[in-house]
Amino acid sequence: MPSGRKVPTIQDVARFAQVSTATVSRALSSPARVSEDTRARISEAVRVTGYTLNQTARSLRKRTARTILVALPDIRNPFFSTILDAIERAAAARGYGVLVANRLVGVEANRRLQEFFLSNRADGLLLLDGSVDLANLVELAGEPAEVPIVMACEDIPNAPFHAVKTDNRYAAELATRHLISLGHTRIGHIRGPAGNTLTDDREAGFRDALTAAGLPVCRQWLFDGNFEMERGLKVSESFLALADRPTAIFAANDETAIGFLSGIRRHGLECPRDISVIGFDDLAVAPHFSPPLTTMRQPREALGRIAASALIDLIEGQPRSQVPLRLVLSSEMIVRGSTAPAALPASSLAAS
Amino acid sequence: MPSGRKVPTIQDVARFAQVSTATVSRALSSPARVSEDTRARISEAVRVTGYTLNQTARSLRKRTARTILVALPDIRNPFFSTILDAIERAAAARGYGVLVANRLVGVEANRRLQEFFLSNRADGLLLLDGSVDLANLVELAGEPAEVPIVMACEDIPNAPFHAVKTDNRYAAELATRHLISLGHTRIGHIRGPAGNTLTDDREAGFRDALTAAGLPVCRQWLFDGNFEMERGLKVSESFLALADRPTAIFAANDETAIGFLSGIRRHGLECPRDISVIGFDDLAVAPHFSPPLTTMRQPREALGRIAASALIDLIEGQPRSQVPLRLVLSSEMIVRGSTAPAALPASSLAAS
Repeated sequence: MPSGRKVPTIQDVARFAQVSTATVSRALSSPARVSEDTRARISEAVRVTGYTLNQTARSLRKRTARTILVALPDIRNPFFSTILDAIERAAAARGYGVLVANRLVGVEANRRLQEFFLSNRADGLLLLDGSVDLANLVELAGEPAEVPIVMACEDIPNAPFHAVKTDNRYAAELATRHLISLGHTRIGHIRGPAGNTLTDDREAGFRDALTAAGLPVCRQWLFDGNFEMERGLKVSESFLALADRPTAIFAANDETAIGFLSGIRRHGLECPRDISVIGFDDLAVAPHFSPPLTTMRQPREALGRIAASALIDLIEGQPRSQVPLRLVLSSEMIVRGSTAPAALPASSLAAS
Repeated sequence: MPSGRKVPTIQDVARFAQVSTATVSRALSSPARVSEDTRARISEAVRVTGYTLNQTARSLRKRTARTILVALPDIRNPFFSTILDAIERAAAARGYGVLVANRLVGVEANRRLQEFFLSNRADGLLLLDGSVDLANLVELAGEPAEVPIVMACEDIPNAPFHAVKTDNRYAAELATRHLISLGHTRIGHIRGPAGNTLTDDREAGFRDALTAAGLPVCRQWLFDGNFEMERGLKVSESFLALADRPTAIFAANDETAIGFLSGIRRHGLECPRDISVIGFDDLAVAPHFSPPLTTMRQPREALGRIAASALIDLIEGQPRSQVPLRLVLSSEMIVRGSTAPAALPASSLAAS
């Protein structure tokens, strides 16, 4: 607007819309709390008067950017993008925007997280990435930044933050027990990436089930994965090279299971005829895969929604007792076509 | 910090780190431009002095939030999350944060977009969602907000904004020509969602190819999809109910193709023996599907990277001539196992 012109105020907007300034303020900060008609009138008044609600100035006053920062390991993984979708919806419902920091690595991670808060661009951190350096986070959460932090999905053991997660260890035990209940006694596991708590928890659950059933954990049946399809494909080659193969595999996530199945199929093996495979996550593609994938469904929508609400509660200074310190959500087993009863061993076939 | 204490300044940081204030400023705004060692010293000085770079105050002065807003149709779709990953990397490299607005619908969409800019939380809009109301966008881009806007992926015809997109119509023509070159003459198409330019462009390309080959566009072989797997599955039922079926299908995206293939398989049909299917996008799962999916690969990484750069160029006031007005990137055909030569018709088999 021309520099000599008077800057429009909230009073100008209120006068034009024939409502109180309190109503204008409410309409701009919590639009759901005013009627559709009032909102439309205020919107028109804002347009005509050229009023700009200076959120930046407001942030300065209130020390709030009305924005949360979500740090994710890899948004290209549909597991995380579904959670981000739920976070974004929950945040928007409370008037918060969502900033995304994806694939933070090492020193760069610390610098980037600090930058967001040093520059007051976000009010709190929702951390879905358990690989971020704990010391740095503690520094971020302390003076002078005092950043509220909530962890989701990937836990950092002993971190002094609220956390919302799924029962990874128990879910992995259930997945492995499912294979045992089908008569499998030779069971392998494709791990997640090294240094990740999900990897450790899921392997621990796998071991729990085998140990409880008196079955051995066989070193050459533990394969190193990284949660990606391509690695699952690579693992299938190590699997095929074994003289002595397992008859069932618990894969640390669905993407790994899909890559593995793709690999063994290229060599003429069939699932579940030759091998049973159970995944983890229940990605959208899981029911459409061939064979449809048996997997542990994680409550992704609830996880994102609850974590976002908990963080915003902290930002808005609600009493800590209202925010659960460690919330653990349950997974659900979805049995489809990729797991089947163990075939009788060749020796027993010969005997019959 | 205690209220009586002197607020630390950039000079305090420079003194402690034994560098100039210009170097501190550079380290905080463009960390890549200073050495690792200098950055570490300044980082330590910031920590010790308790200095807070007040980006909010800076934004007020410079009218910049150093943040871009990305509006997406559905981040749960891996096609979009891969583009968002590229946008986030490109933006971070230039010191910008990325705010996400997902699944904007109708009036709510307008309100939410306006809010971000009325509150100065973002400097520009990267629009991946062609369903947003054009009039609202034009208002956003004009006085008083003057929001720089770049469109990516989904074009809005005649919109006065820069756009980065792929050659949807031509790519769809190539996909359909591939089916024709395999001897198929009975070819169907599963459309994208109604009212979407991608849907229109891909259907137009499909028609271009059939018309050029002198083949009919058969009304009952045009199926209504919505880019989602579940709808692809539903379409397979309509397909199976036809007395007179096509022998090949061009699906408007990979998710549709995957759902469709999953559906026909449940009824004992095999791809490509009974029907050839080509998709669009080349999702990560496409090579691992059974059969591996023939598809048109879109340059998603380049698309996100170029669109983010173009928007930041606009925000930073670079001459418009440096920003391409309409940049069209090429797609690439990836031939895999889901397409095969048309079988000989039953009549010719009988004659042989």
